[in-house]
Amino acid sequence: MQGENITITLMHVEQRMSALVHLHPGEAAQAVAQHLSAGGSRVRARLALHACRALRVHEPAAVAIAAACELLHNASLVHDDLQDRDAQRRGRDAVWRSHGDATAICAGDLLLSAAYAALADTGPAAASLLAAMHARVSAVIRGQCDDLALQGGTLACLHTYERVAAAKSGPLLVLPLELALRSAGQAAAVDDAERAGTLFAVGYQAADDLDDVERDAVNEELNVVAVLAASGHADPFVAARELAIDRYRQSAAIALRLPGGCGALLAEQATRRAALLSGEAAAA
Amino acid sequence: MQGENITITLMHVEQRMSALVHLHPGEAAQAVAQHLSAGGSRVRARLALHACRALRVHEPAAVAIAAACELLHNASLVHDDLQDRDAQRRGRDAVWRSHGDATAICAGDLLLSAAYAALADTGPAAASLLAAMHARVSAVIRGQCDDLALQGGTLACLHTYERVAAAKSGPLLVLPLELALRSAGQAAAVDDAERAGTLFAVGYQAADDLDDVERDAVNEELNVVAVLAASGHADPFVAARELAIDRYRQSAAIALRLPGGCGALLAEQATRRAALLSGEAAAA
Repeated sequence: MQGENITITLMHVEQRMSALVHLHPGEAAQAVAQHLSAGGSRVRARLALHACRALRVHEPAAVAIAAACELLHNASLVHDDLQDRDAQRRGRDAVWRSHGDATAICAGDLLLSAAYAALADTGPAAASLLAAMHARVSAVIRGQCDDLALQGGTLACLHTYERVAAAKSGPLLVLPLELALRSAGQAAAVDDAERAGTLFAVGYQAADDLDDVERDAVNEELNVVAVLAASGHADPFVAARELAIDRYRQSAAIALRLPGGCGALLAEQATRRAALLSGEAAAA
Repeated sequence: MQGENITITLMHVEQRMSALVHLHPGEAAQAVAQHLSAGGSRVRARLALHACRALRVHEPAAVAIAAACELLHNASLVHDDLQDRDAQRRGRDAVWRSHGDATAICAGDLLLSAAYAALADTGPAAASLLAAMHARVSAVIRGQCDDLALQGGTLACLHTYERVAAAKSGPLLVLPLELALRSAGQAAAVDDAERAGTLFAVGYQAADDLDDVERDAVNEELNVVAVLAASGHADPFVAARELAIDRYRQSAAIALRLPGGCGALLAEQATRRAALLSGEAAAA
């Protein structure tokens, strides 16, 4: 996969996303455009394109899958920011802050609907991809509800923490690999993709928590450092970093076993993030 | 179409809806179950089943289309109630009132996602139905945003009122007919279905406004009686009723021309509602 090539294909993904949210211009479409233009690393689109190329999925279907995964992720960001009252996203006001609560609900709905519409370009696999996407969306909604229920000072055990972190972020990280595998007729590998994506999600959430210990304490949000402190760890910060490194490394090992090298980019991301955390540990 | 037959098929639609929202039990799924169990006339499911039978669409696809339309409608109800702060729905507390704002957002998202997943059972037509559904969802989101923008005392002209009423309720009334027509390879008739469904929506909204004049005045919500009063009608109440009757009758006339009699149930509904309003006018 050539760097230039992937940049051009990512532009096609952006164009497809933009076309799908602008069928009917209005305040919701404007809010979505503003949200999407703020950037974001498009990790899910990249994971999808990489996996589709590795598995020789046709380019139009690959663009459709990448657009679907990225639109879905952004739908979850817009609604999560509103639910959590997070005021900032990518250095700008979150949609609920700039456009109001009602428009933020509409904007998230529009992104969710557009994500499904993107799958119309996936050919005969569309029906099975639809069903798979809904299963992941259902899981992520359940995770978000569980996470919200644990806010307000309830202290979870590590097992509950991992379950919620996995449910909240895992499904939308699994999805790019899953849709690529299903499009390529490799559904048997979806279980391994699920394990790799879920472990990555736990690693990601724990690493994210390390940067947010104080803020989460003020907002009474679930944080792995607080969970480990409550269960008696002498240095919960170190233990949380070790947990994140371990989950990233496990994720990479499983991702590398996926068919056709389709998990190589996920493995690379996980390995790089684990190395960064190890470097921090060494410097500390 | 026999009455018993349609009752059994509607049970299959209910089962499909329930299965799709319960993939992952949790608070959002519970909230959705409670919302759906409160009843509702399932007009959109009936319209879809009727149209599919008239056009000889296979039963599994008909059930899928009916479930998709009904799930989508309920998604819009859950999110609209939250946006409008309507406390009651079908004689019970609205979801945001019984489960909180965050769960209401999740519940609407789950219903929207489930609506798309229902289309997985529509066979080779799935891709074109997906795209058609997203176009209607985009239109309805635009209508909802425009309606919200007109709240707070801004008085619209009748033209704007009809445009907003059409955009807010029309697309999800058109959808059952549209998906049936597209499944049956009769896409050429979608424009007429759109006119019939849109006129029905304007009639419905105007008739609904007649019952809500005082409440809408207090809440500063758009109401056709206030719009007609502001544009100088001597008896805006009578003029609003005549408008509703006229739009229902126009809707019925167009619906009766749709292929294979697929619009007969919409025409019957429109004619019955127009007759009720005429009866009220005669009694007044």
